[in-house]
Order: sequence, then structure tokens, then C-alpha cells
Amino acid sequence: MTDTTPQPDQRSDPDRPGRPVPPGDVSIRPASLDDLAAIVGLLMDDPLGAGRENPDDLAPYARAFVALSRDPNQVLAVAERAGEVVGTLQLTLIPGLSHQGALRGQIEAVRVRVDERRSGLGTVLIEWAVEESARRGAAMVQLTSSTSRKGAHAFYEALGFQASHVGFKRDLRR
Amino acid sequence: MTDTTPQPDQRSDPDRPGRPVPPGDVSIRPASLDDLAAIVGLLMDDPLGAGRENPDDLAPYARAFVALSRDPNQVLAVAERAGEVVGTLQLTLIPGLSHQGALRGQIEAVRVRVDERRSGLGTVLIEWAVEESARRGAAMVQLTSSTSRKGAHAFYEALGFQASHVGFKRDLRR
Repeated sequence: MTDTTPQPDQRSDPDRPGRPVPPGDVSIRPASLDDLAAIVGLLMDDPLGAGRENPDDLAPYARAFVALSRDPNQVLAVAERAGEVVGTLQLTLIPGLSHQGALRGQIEAVRVRVDERRSGLGTVLIEWAVEESARRGAAMVQLTSSTSRKGAHAFYEALGFQASHVGFKRDLRR
Repeated sequence: MTDTTPQPDQRSDPDRPGRPVPPGDVSIRPASLDDLAAIVGLLMDDPLGAGRENPDDLAPYARAFVALSRDPNQVLAVAERAGEVVGTLQLTLIPGLSHQGALRGQIEAVRVRVDERRSGLGTVLIEWAVEESARRGAAMVQLTSSTSRKGAHAFYEALGFQASHVGFKRDLRR
């Protein structure tokens, strides 16, 4: 990835039009098993995640990591700065018949470390996922955000996402 | 699948507690390529689908069908009655780190033929997908529904789904 001075209002690299510029010396890459504890830390450090994650037992996360690694339609990505994981997201490519056989990119589990928020890193992560989806032939990118994350909704709308759907969940563990 | 008399208010088979009873002689099975035109017909016969599907060229749908068939985390299902496809949905199993490494079932592209609506078939399709998700170890099932499908929202809430999220889409074809 390119290393550049942060330019909050300029998200396009003049040498590579359309490519977002990572803020500072951030790079985005596929996660490795060595990143697992850091990613779980990011999942924990969140108003919703705090109540549902358990960093004291990484075994279930490691099993999920293996499942992700074996599935070519899954990309678990981390943003790294100076050797530290400062952000993460999961991208899933979903083939389907609707929309004339459109492939979809789906973004889940977006997290940015507290001290990196409002730095433009969230934008870089999402644009990375959008570009990767487009590169793989996706016709659309979709995600859901908890109704309680009001700030996130404005963020996604600013990035060209439309709040066109209601997201439903049914918990099977209860 | 069991053949039973339709019992709109009783969704559980007394011989197999928790199992939904298909209305009439409906069975649910994985789709085959022979079902493709019928499924595309169902996708078309919908207020939103009419403007975005093209049944005159099945080639893009056939390519998507092949992609679905090759992915063990995808199940394209059809509901069949008397040899005719009367409903469809797609179930995607998505591994992930969040929620302590929870596997998710995700439902997309739910359609019921016009003359089969309000028969309980939609319930049977969704419960089939929920059961299949649970059988494969999913901790939750999720779906999104266009904000314009008000009737569908009440339907999903009656089936135990919570409208906890906002669903965002970004079209990459524009």
C-alpha cells in the first residue's frame, strides 16, 4: 500500500485515480492467525461487542478463523500501522440469482481502534472492501448496521450507501 | 417431506416437534439447473424484481447457478408442489469472528408464487432455512428486506426476527 501524509478531504491518490489513500502509514492486508488476539480486542472494544465477546478464550475465534481461511469467498482484513492492528473488517462475496445473477460483496464486523477513529481509517477500510468487491466482479456491496449506531449510518450514507433495507436477526442460541 | 393437510395456525408437526408442516403437498429441496427458468420467473414476478430481472437471457443466471452450486456454504432451495416450483430462497452460511466465532445463516431472495401467497408457504420456507442453519451450527439467522416491503416486515417479526439493523446497499454498476 502507498504511504502518504494524511489528507482527510482527499481520498483519491492522484497516481491511482479512484484508489483511496490510507491515512498516514496504514496498510490493509489479509489477517493472519497472529492477528487473532488483536482483532478480538477490537471486537471487544465496542459498545455492542463488549457484552458478547470473550477474549479470555480464543479457541472459538481460532476455529472461526480457520473456517474463514478455507473459504475463498471470505476475506478477513486488518489495517496495520507501525506493526499494530488498528482496524478490521470482514468481506464476504455472495453469488446469487437475483439482479441478473449479481455477485454481492457483504461487509461485516467493521472496527477501528478507539484512538484511530475520525482519522479517515474507516473510510479507507470501507473503500478497500468496495474496491475488492468490484475487482472480484460484484455488482453491489451491502452491509447492515445496528439501529443504535447512529453515527455509523451517516458515515455509510456519506460513502454512497443507501439505507434502503431493514435488517432482521433471529438468535438461535436462546 | 411430510404431506399434510394445510393447518395455517399449527406450524409444528406433533410427530416431529419443532418441525414446520409444509402446507399441502409442498416439499422443499435444493434447486437443480432444470428449475432455473421457474426461479427466474419467481424473481420477476415481484414489484421490485420486475424492473431488474431479464428472463429473456438466462445465461447470467446459469453462471450464477454454477457459482452457487460450487460453494458448499450456499443453498439455493425451491418449494415444489405437484412438480411445479412455487417458492424459492437462498441460504448462505457465513463464518465470522464476532459473537465468539459465530456462524450465521443469511437468507436472500425469498419468493412465493402469487397464487401460493398467504398459504403459509413463506413460513415453511423461512423455517426450513432456520432449521438448516441450526443444523449446520449457526448461532443466528439474518436477512434484510426492502423498506418498501411493509407486509414482509410484520411477517418476519411474527417468525421471531427482530428488526434490529439498518440495511445499506451501494450499487457498483452505476
